[in-house]
Amino acid sequence: MSKIMDKPLPNIPWQEKPEGCTAPVWRYTENPIIPRDAIPSSNSVFNSAVVPFGKGFAGLFRCDSKSVSMDLFAGFSEDGIHWTIHHDPISFEGDSEVIRREYRYDPRVCFIGDRYYISWCNGYHGPTIGLGWTFDFQTFHQSENAFLPYNRNGVLFPRKIGGNYAILSRPSDTGHTPFGDIFYSESPDLIFWGKHRYVMGTVPGDASAWQSKKIGPGPIPIETDEGWLLIYHGVIQTCNGFVYRMGCALLDRDKPWKVKCRSKYYILGPQEYYECVGDVPNVTFPCAALTDADTGRIAIYYGCADTVTGLAFTTADELINYMKQHPLEEDKA
Amino acid sequence: MSKIMDKPLPNIPWQEKPEGCTAPVWRYTENPIIPRDAIPSSNSVFNSAVVPFGKGFAGLFRCDSKSVSMDLFAGFSEDGIHWTIHHDPISFEGDSEVIRREYRYDPRVCFIGDRYYISWCNGYHGPTIGLGWTFDFQTFHQSENAFLPYNRNGVLFPRKIGGNYAILSRPSDTGHTPFGDIFYSESPDLIFWGKHRYVMGTVPGDASAWQSKKIGPGPIPIETDEGWLLIYHGVIQTCNGFVYRMGCALLDRDKPWKVKCRSKYYILGPQEYYECVGDVPNVTFPCAALTDADTGRIAIYYGCADTVTGLAFTTADELINYMKQHPLEEDKA
Amino acid sequence: MSKIMDKPLPNIPWQEKPEGCTAPVWRYTENPIIPRDAIPSSNSVFNSAVVPFGKGFAGLFRCDSKSVSMDLFAGFSEDGIHWTIHHDPISFEGDSEVIRREYRYDPRVCFIGDRYYISWCNGYHGPTIGLGWTFDFQTFHQSENAFLPYNRNGVLFPRKIGGNYAILSRPSDTGHTPFGDIFYSESPDLIFWGKHRYVMGTVPGDASAWQSKKIGPGPIPIETDEGWLLIYHGVIQTCNGFVYRMGCALLDRDKPWKVKCRSKYYILGPQEYYECVGDVPNVTFPCAALTDADTGRIAIYYGCADTVTGLAFTTADELINYMKQHPLEEDKA
Amino acid sequence: MSKIMDKPLPNIPWQEKPEGCTAPVWRYTENPIIPRDAIPSSNSVFNSAVVPFGKGFAGLFRCDSKSVSMDLFAGFSEDGIHWTIHHDPISFEGDSEVIRREYRYDPRVCFIGDRYYISWCNGYHGPTIGLGWTFDFQTFHQSENAFLPYNRNGVLFPRKIGGNYAILSRPSDTGHTPFGDIFYSESPDLIFWGKHRYVMGTVPGDASAWQSKKIGPGPIPIETDEGWLLIYHGVIQTCNGFVYRMGCALLDRDKPWKVKCRSKYYILGPQEYYECVGDVPNVTFPCAALTDADTGRIAIYYGCADTVTGLAFTTADELINYMKQHPLEEDKA
Amino acid sequence: MSKIMDKPLPNIPWQEKPEGCTAPVWRYTENPIIPRDAIPSSNSVFNSAVVPFGKGFAGLFRCDSKSVSMDLFAGFSEDGIHWTIHHDPISFEGDSEVIRREYRYDPRVCFIGDRYYISWCNGYHGPTIGLGWTFDFQTFHQSENAFLPYNRNGVLFPRKIGGNYAILSRPSDTGHTPFGDIFYSESPDLIFWGKHRYVMGTVPGDASAWQSKKIGPGPIPIETDEGWLLIYHGVIQTCNGFVYRMGCALLDRDKPWKVKCRSKYYILGPQEYYECVGDVPNVTFPCAALTDADTGRIAIYYGCADTVTGLAFTTADELINYMKQHPLEEDKA
Amino acid sequence: MSKIMDKPLPNIPWQEKPEGCTAPVWRYTENPIIPRDAIPSSNSVFNSAVVPFGKGFAGLFRCDSKSVSMDLFAGFSEDGIHWTIHHDPISFEGDSEVIRREYRYDPRVCFIGDRYYISWCNGYHGPTIGLGWTFDFQTFHQSENAFLPYNRNGVLFPRKIGGNYAILSRPSDTGHTPFGDIFYSESPDLIFWGKHRYVMGTVPGDASAWQSKKIGPGPIPIETDEGWLLIYHGVIQTCNGFVYRMGCALLDRDKPWKVKCRSKYYILGPQEYYECVGDVPNVTFPCAALTDADTGRIAIYYGCADTVTGLAFTTADELINYMKQHPLEEDKA
Repeated sequence: MSKIMDKPLPNIPWQEKPEGCTAPVWRYTENPIIPRDAIPSSNSVFNSAVVPFGKGFAGLFRCDSKSVSMDLFAGFSEDGIHWTIHHDPISFEGDSEVIRREYRYDPRVCFIGDRYYISWCNGYHGPTIGLGWTFDFQTFHQSENAFLPYNRNGVLFPRKIGGNYAILSRPSDTGHTPFGDIFYSESPDLIFWGKHRYVMGTVPGDASAWQSKKIGPGPIPIETDEGWLLIYHGVIQTCNGFVYRMGCALLDRDKPWKVKCRSKYYILGPQEYYECVGDVPNVTFPCAALTDADTGRIAIYYGCADTVTGLAFTTADELINYMKQHPLEEDKA
Repeated sequence: MSKIMDKPLPNIPWQEKPEGCTAPVWRYTENPIIPRDAIPSSNSVFNSAVVPFGKGFAGLFRCDSKSVSMDLFAGFSEDGIHWTIHHDPISFEGDSEVIRREYRYDPRVCFIGDRYYISWCNGYHGPTIGLGWTFDFQTFHQSENAFLPYNRNGVLFPRKIGGNYAILSRPSDTGHTPFGDIFYSESPDLIFWGKHRYVMGTVPGDASAWQSKKIGPGPIPIETDEGWLLIYHGVIQTCNGFVYRMGCALLDRDKPWKVKCRSKYYILGPQEYYECVGDVPNVTFPCAALTDADTGRIAIYYGCADTVTGLAFTTADELINYMKQHPLEEDKA
Repeated sequence: MSKIMDKPLPNIPWQEKPEGCTAPVWRYTENPIIPRDAIPSSNSVFNSAVVPFGKGFAGLFRCDSKSVSMDLFAGFSEDGIHWTIHHDPISFEGDSEVIRREYRYDPRVCFIGDRYYISWCNGYHGPTIGLGWTFDFQTFHQSENAFLPYNRNGVLFPRKIGGNYAILSRPSDTGHTPFGDIFYSESPDLIFWGKHRYVMGTVPGDASAWQSKKIGPGPIPIETDEGWLLIYHGVIQTCNGFVYRMGCALLDRDKPWKVKCRSKYYILGPQEYYECVGDVPNVTFPCAALTDADTGRIAIYYGCADTVTGLAFTTADELINYMKQHPLEEDKA
Repeated sequence: MSKIMDKPLPNIPWQEKPEGCTAPVWRYTENPIIPRDAIPSSNSVFNSAVVPFGKGFAGLFRCDSKSVSMDLFAGFSEDGIHWTIHHDPISFEGDSEVIRREYRYDPRVCFIGDRYYISWCNGYHGPTIGLGWTFDFQTFHQSENAFLPYNRNGVLFPRKIGGNYAILSRPSDTGHTPFGDIFYSESPDLIFWGKHRYVMGTVPGDASAWQSKKIGPGPIPIETDEGWLLIYHGVIQTCNGFVYRMGCALLDRDKPWKVKCRSKYYILGPQEYYECVGDVPNVTFPCAALTDADTGRIAIYYGCADTVTGLAFTTADELINYMKQHPLEEDKA
Repeated sequence: MSKIMDKPLPNIPWQEKPEGCTAPVWRYTENPIIPRDAIPSSNSVFNSAVVPFGKGFAGLFRCDSKSVSMDLFAGFSEDGIHWTIHHDPISFEGDSEVIRREYRYDPRVCFIGDRYYISWCNGYHGPTIGLGWTFDFQTFHQSENAFLPYNRNGVLFPRKIGGNYAILSRPSDTGHTPFGDIFYSESPDLIFWGKHRYVMGTVPGDASAWQSKKIGPGPIPIETDEGWLLIYHGVIQTCNGFVYRMGCALLDRDKPWKVKCRSKYYILGPQEYYECVGDVPNVTFPCAALTDADTGRIAIYYGCADTVTGLAFTTADELINYMKQHPLEEDKA
Repeated sequence: MSKIMDKPLPNIPWQEKPEGCTAPVWRYTENPIIPRDAIPSSNSVFNSAVVPFGKGFAGLFRCDSKSVSMDLFAGFSEDGIHWTIHHDPISFEGDSEVIRREYRYDPRVCFIGDRYYISWCNGYHGPTIGLGWTFDFQTFHQSENAFLPYNRNGVLFPRKIGGNYAILSRPSDTGHTPFGDIFYSESPDLIFWGKHRYVMGTVPGDASAWQSKKIGPGPIPIETDEGWLLIYHGVIQTCNGFVYRMGCALLDRDKPWKVKCRSKYYILGPQEYYECVGDVPNVTFPCAALTDADTGRIAIYYGCADTVTGLAFTTADELINYMKQHPLEEDKA
């Protein structure tokens, strides 16, 4: 049995696996937990980040406005399911050149040391990885963009690796990028980045076609005694567009660019109407996960059809065992 | 309070705004009002035009046949909600070169002076703006196409401006046009057109992304004491296709190419299943509006997913106030 | 009244035409008959082939796995509606160069003489037409690919024509082919193929736009005294992707590349949610048909949204009469 | 023998047809007549318009600057071969909304009544047809754009037809348009335009593939007793880009949208280095022609590789006879 | 030293290798041997086939007309360098359905047994491989097309292999195909074809980028004691289009789908002006080769820039040694 | 008069400006200085870097092989014009993960402190910026890639700025990138990079269309008392492909992301045959410049048509004065 190397979280949102369910991940029965009009100005609320905070939970939410402008909004919850989201987007303090807003979306939040670090897709003459931090989800500071454009899906590791901060990302282009592999980079100070390493890419051919067009990291990697457990998204291009599903992988704890295991099967894909119908049909896109080290429970927050937010459950053992039962053979990667 | 400069229409279809609704436009509770198989030959009935006629209402309907051929059909209704549509498409009298039919779709109907003028997307070596008129919705006369190909969404003003007839349109290309701005043109005689003026275009970037790909005029502009109230469609291109939503703008009464105000937020978008699922998912496309000058009420007819016809309600004040509360700033347009 | 030139099949799955239904084809009321998770590994089950076998029925099913790998699975049923599908894909005996699997999908099964012949889309440096046979749906033999890449939708005739085996197919390209016409070819031995003839193509313009982008043969042609009754798929490209519908045609019995009649109207298209929503929205794709010569009944198996399998009913007379009532005029083809 | 219905021009530039030449058009032996750096700021001088003026000739030249900005420059010549071009672009008087310059290129000049009218591709929220006039090539007045965007190659007729001004043009899109047919339009006042007629389009298939991608009118049509002699450009798309060649047609004198005859063979195409090598390889693009009614001589000015200007010679009889010897059969057009 | 398994041809056109030349193929010093206007109607003469005939040589030439129509013309020569080409295209006898001409181009001629077989790219609802034969280059008979559309570059072997006729081809699509591998097929009777085998494809990455986009067979394979010597074309796509170069390979004599050796380096590419400048810049495209078994000499005929015909020389030893010195390593193919 | 802040270089290759020449840059009269077959294996030699070295010059050359493989080769010259290039590509010492070669092209060489630093386009799961150094052009060390993919045209500054190393680059995509702006980044150690700043981008519209598609830095910036003199390439997309020209800009000495001046006119573009004709027509691509502080002379090395290497001359004053005479107005950038 694998062990999650993090704190216990007794109040993690949870439902037991339904009887007869053979899938490694199961949906919350009252999905979606956040509707598209959760705040007055919102067209949709999805692809959002959630962390334990105080006695409850805090989060950053991607709320596209009724002008379909993309920005980040803070929210709070006692149980991780019912959320109160601020009606105004967060604003950042920092260097005036850096904090100039073009657009912000798909946030991740990662607690390291004494504060909550935030990464997101940040418009700066094209999409790149914005970085910032907060102590209290009231005041936010924005630092340098991690990379040159064009990049998306920057996901920090929750501790330093080899003495440096570490991040996963998916280099992109200026549009609806038709390609995408996952890379790893390090930084001594969260300002200067280097030592870039290729982690893993799409799977050509038929072996694992749900991840044949592009892949990108999802929630903050979960440290286990077997390695970093990474939940990521994979995309196939059908004749009628992209389908976004979830998969998982195990990365080496010391050299996270080494892939120890990777799922050949997706672990969740669009099947419910709220996942198949919406502004962008057929999208399930994970951006955050809560974990409880005592029980191995994992609660995944994921965007549905770029419109609403869903919640799903699994455990570290479920994912790791599923990966081992249905591994992607190395020569296929 | 704004005033509609037109006749009263006491029998306008109507439902009061639902309690708690904060949106400026609300749907008829029994939508869709016209199903896809309203006549025996029809695959779909949508993007259609409705006007007061006699004691009730008349209209021109886009009925795509079961061969998916596009044509215009006349229909009549006592209450504006329940419609009887002829089983055969209308035919036109006129110059034989002009009336030759390739295809006809997306009609608008506009009463000026003594008759009902009709404009539509007309196949003539490519899509352009067809023009015609009727007194009785039984006999139809077709005149010259207003423009060279390629154009769509020709929408007449309901009175002369500066002594000339006036029209809005959206120059296009030959296919599923990936661009589109709104222009204004004048004519002394509905045959020769000129004095073309740019009115407004798409909104680049993130400021109002729902209208970032193309926009086009919808129903006949509604004259108010504050200006012409224009309901239009705006389109965003997601990785899985186009999404069509509605917005509104106020145009100067004497120089309608001057935009006085424009909504940053959309006023209605695809959210119900009959708007999100159908032959073309995620389309809400307004083509007609009834107005009652006494109350300011407006009833909007709109195509849903290129499959069925919906009805929605608002008032002149709702739209104008919403625009002023959520204006598109000028430097963003 | 037309006559089906085949054996009676008294146990054909069947429901009478619903009262008031004017369409030539009607859906089974309990659709879909096969859900996406019919076997533990399946993401979707669709585009599948069914034949009478013993006292019941056998079939080959396209089950895309949870890795979205495409393969063929054998299944059996007593009533043609409730199916037991093997959990492992079929494997083939044969020349090692030929049986190497890249991917296999969209099977058809055709009984000729003493055995069941199978054709499918077979990956061999691109998609082409795989051929094989079985006596018992337990052991399968694969022979030479019928054609060079790139081809899809190979459909055998159930008897020799002019002394040769005969096949329909749709030459394609390497991707989501944006074109496609139906061709006819012959072979003395099912190994060497030639005498290729053009049968019919897409319909330009507005005359029958549902089949304006590509067409391809569906189930094994049904021999009637009036000609070969061919059910096929037709595709239109909207601004939001392809829509796949069904049509039918009558081919000359001796020279099947001569089209005697062809439907201008589609006979079934995506309208139900299980046809409009799924991995590929808006697909109805027929791959098999059962027939009862005594009654003229036809049961059509078709893939729905590339996700589940549906069943629909008609008769030879329904289709032939519908074609004659709504014929595609020759100069339009 | 055909007759040109215009004035004599004894000083027309001229060289006799070389012995042994079987082509209907022959090049000036000292081509190109205008080099790319004819004025200090020019990157290239091409696609230009020339008319008799005073005792010599005047013209408007497309000089792309060394910033590759496109504008019109006036020039004068005694012999039609050696030109003095002003170093500054022309400027227009007129309505401030209309004369605002985005870009201007590919001019034509047409003498009607008492003045020289000018048409060109004018940037106004996309390319459209600019119109203006001059008496003296010193002062220029710009009037309303003839059409909505998007259009190119507006070419006036040198006299009214049916009491109206008349123009040919090629509706286009916003980019390197991959289609293009020739249309005809009329105007009572050069402000309002209508009565649009399709004239002729591309030739599908193999019959006349040099004009299979797009065609557009070239010089001002030349009136002869047999009809309007139109020299136009035709384009084929090879795997390495567009090739622009010249063809000719005869249009009915009273109804110029009726094509009486059209060349199946091109009459001149890129073969010399200055036509094959340059900023845009493989372009020969005619924009002007001088004619001498006494001899039937025609001198064609054409752009070469979008870089320099060439001169070529023919006669009305050469072109009309060549068209008749190698006609495009009507059912192929 | 390798040996050509064919007849001697003492009058093969020939020039010795220039001193200092290190390339394996060298050009005829008087290139091009056939100009673009070799016959009165021709725009270009290229991609043509030549064989020994009587005391001299005969050939089939692709002459694109001045309407840029593509057809085949017979020609004769005493020395293989100076050619007399008929002014009219060849016509075929045969089945009326088969001999209907859409277009014909890129011929190959192959002597087998008692006659000259011809293969070419034949328009039949798209490009496919036309087949025919002649005894005398006066009368031509056309048989069945070898394959379904879409195919190009059908090249017969000069003797049966394993008792069957054999052909190489390059499956294609309907346009300027952006992919292309070489396949092998067999036939007992030149009518029915099967036993399709993949031979070799493009080379991904940087290892041999000149053949990274598509490849196709060129002249009739030359039998040597070491294997079939195949000269083929390879294409790279630069930002400014396709570049066509020549390479060579050795195929197994009994199983020609087995590649024994393949050149990593191209053997000739566009460098001279007549190869770099023309209707399609940067094309060297081989379609025929003469061989002399006594000396090992090879004379290659190749199209230049889709405009003129060039001649180049090499020997079997030159090519085989060059391949062995610069082999494409197997794991790179 | 501006002053170059570098050492004198009395033996700089040089020719005086030709009489009558008004352009700011003039070509070496014996161009090209390096032919395509400069070494036995080379298909082309272009886009190369040259520096003073010992009593003469050294350089790194992009030699594409006859397999069209891209790599870097060292070369030496006494006069900077006649070069001896090694027949084998350079190899690097360093971390085995980093030095694995996919492809290498378009090198720049920059002397900082005690060594020659090298940057180039390096294949590492896509193109990025490779970095390395040498003391003697015999032994080469490769360090970490500067950035994540996808990037091209990394160009170092010749001294630290604000205490950090500094680089310009052009973020790209995986193919023939259709966009491209210049960015600036800093590093304390040449391993970790950050503080990315947007420098300048393409020029929309007609103001300076030669640089409307993409731009990228060329030679190492030249420090002058007025600012960093940057020679860069700009690209326009015509209907027949990309045209690469040269421009220049002045960047602030302390904050090089501040553009002080930028040329509206190009300073050199493809006009000679060796620039217009070759593997990629119409390319002039500068990668290196020598300077002599005493005279202000500058010698530019540039690739021609991706085939050969050219040399051109100018002075700091010529460029700066030209920029000031023909400035790009700020609101246009």
